[in-house]
Amino acid sequence: MNFPSCESIINASQRISPFVHRTPVMTSMNIDKTLSMRLFFKCENFQKIGAFKYRGATNAIQQLTSKQLQHGVATHSSGNHAQALALAASIKKVKSFIVMPINASKIKKDAVIGYGGTIIECGSTLEARETTLAQVLKKEKTHFIHPYNDYKIIEGQATAAKEFIEDVPNLDYLIAPVGGGGLLSGCALATKYFSPKTKTVGAEPIGAKDAFLSLKAGKIIPSINPKTMADGLLTSLGSKTFPIILKYVDQIFTAKETTIVNAMQLIWQRMKIIIEPSAAVPLAVVMENINVFKNKKIGIILSGGNVDFNNLPFDQN
Amino acid sequence: MNFPSCESIINASQRISPFVHRTPVMTSMNIDKTLSMRLFFKCENFQKIGAFKYRGATNAIQQLTSKQLQHGVATHSSGNHAQALALAASIKKVKSFIVMPINASKIKKDAVIGYGGTIIECGSTLEARETTLAQVLKKEKTHFIHPYNDYKIIEGQATAAKEFIEDVPNLDYLIAPVGGGGLLSGCALATKYFSPKTKTVGAEPIGAKDAFLSLKAGKIIPSINPKTMADGLLTSLGSKTFPIILKYVDQIFTAKETTIVNAMQLIWQRMKIIIEPSAAVPLAVVMENINVFKNKKIGIILSGGNVDFNNLPFDQN
Repeated sequence: MNFPSCESIINASQRISPFVHRTPVMTSMNIDKTLSMRLFFKCENFQKIGAFKYRGATNAIQQLTSKQLQHGVATHSSGNHAQALALAASIKKVKSFIVMPINASKIKKDAVIGYGGTIIECGSTLEARETTLAQVLKKEKTHFIHPYNDYKIIEGQATAAKEFIEDVPNLDYLIAPVGGGGLLSGCALATKYFSPKTKTVGAEPIGAKDAFLSLKAGKIIPSINPKTMADGLLTSLGSKTFPIILKYVDQIFTAKETTIVNAMQLIWQRMKIIIEPSAAVPLAVVMENINVFKNKKIGIILSGGNVDFNNLPFDQN
Repeated sequence: MNFPSCESIINASQRISPFVHRTPVMTSMNIDKTLSMRLFFKCENFQKIGAFKYRGATNAIQQLTSKQLQHGVATHSSGNHAQALALAASIKKVKSFIVMPINASKIKKDAVIGYGGTIIECGSTLEARETTLAQVLKKEKTHFIHPYNDYKIIEGQATAAKEFIEDVPNLDYLIAPVGGGGLLSGCALATKYFSPKTKTVGAEPIGAKDAFLSLKAGKIIPSINPKTMADGLLTSLGSKTFPIILKYVDQIFTAKETTIVNAMQLIWQRMKIIIEPSAAVPLAVVMENINVFKNKKIGIILSGGNVDFNNLPFDQN
């Protein structure tokens, strides 16, 4: 396969730079001291729409021709890709059709509408999503942009790792959460091109460890009935993301739900920034594997910060 | 009175710079658009111990002689000054004795202990605090550092405004919350010296509007039975802070509790950073007085980010 090239990631970076934030890298002396390592956090929770997904959506939409864009764009997503596509489309002044499960939270629906998207509700299964999306594509003649299984999306997400490597050279590890694999495959490519000595590691909730199993089996093992609060990491790997991960990701680690909560709370309390559960999985992985990461220089991508404040996972006492 | 001079604030800034963070200034295009103004937020929630209080405590302790420090330092505080003094003392390798009300939260007590402080418990009234502190000072022969009514504390807090003005010149307004007035008086002095065209404004919860009333009356009106979730703003002005505020603060605005909650939630949701209720009061004041602040360039000091995540003020629905 022809994976995205070094040049394609550099081009993506230049293409999207007028539209995305170059997010800051933060550190915490307290967490470093507690865990005996040097941790650097790339704050994509501060990205527009509150997550890295805006990079990929922007990179994809900005490359479409006027003709391709004349009937707008569409996707199915209950999460950050929905908001990302809606905002990226509105910047291009085109319509966006977002297929969302009927049980998606009001906050997420309001956000999509706030960015100018049109919501089409569907049932909560993957089948229902795909059927509804097919109907929308047929009816609206609109352009489908997949949440992750698309090289333009992968190149867009890779720009987060490219910036990270520029700002913090010589990382021993770069760790990103893995759901469909758009971010992780992009990180793996950027690391290979721009910091080849850095190891790329995936972080996955143990209740949704399909990527862990897939890497072990050497083929895509679908995510069936995943159970985790990290709701950005429920999906299966794709035909475009998996081969990159298989080739360039060193290892995928899993983390328990309790550790994910602890990691999230540690970042909220010590760094005073809001991250969503999915973004806490890399730190949870580090906390469960101290011996692997001790005394190392580690980069973690904080993937997003979209949280329902009325439904926090912290202990109520 | 001889208020702290321009030089004393510059000296404080140089004195504490090896120990404190130069905190970043953040903006939110979304909030700016919603409120039709340009807002700049100085993130003292990212300061060590999670609040600006570490500036004043460091400035005070760093000026004490070895002899003054031989029996350590002491204060009474249930809040951020307690943690600030404990950490600043530990940096100087001296003891700290913190008188705290018996009903102070476990989180706050644990934080003080974590920074190496010794807690002496007392009743929850101001009288009980002062009596217990007097006993501690007598028994331990230790040095008292007041939370706000001390020029060294005021000079330390003023350094936050000095940095802010350097990073964002030509502000129309600089707004800080007011409790005992250490931060507000420091901001007023720094603004007078370093950006005299900028107006300094105090922000106070309507349920604790003693500073508002004091400025109106031209004398200190004590804070009696204050009622607000902004628990950093319960105290009365002091003999050193009030004259500075009277002379150099343009106006004090009050804000309702519901607006404080909305302002806090807006910053959490849109900026993805954690601030405590007291830090939300300046934005709440802006939201209640749009006509005053519309189209202006406004600096807000986000005073701190120490929040009990199990007791958030957001609507549970």
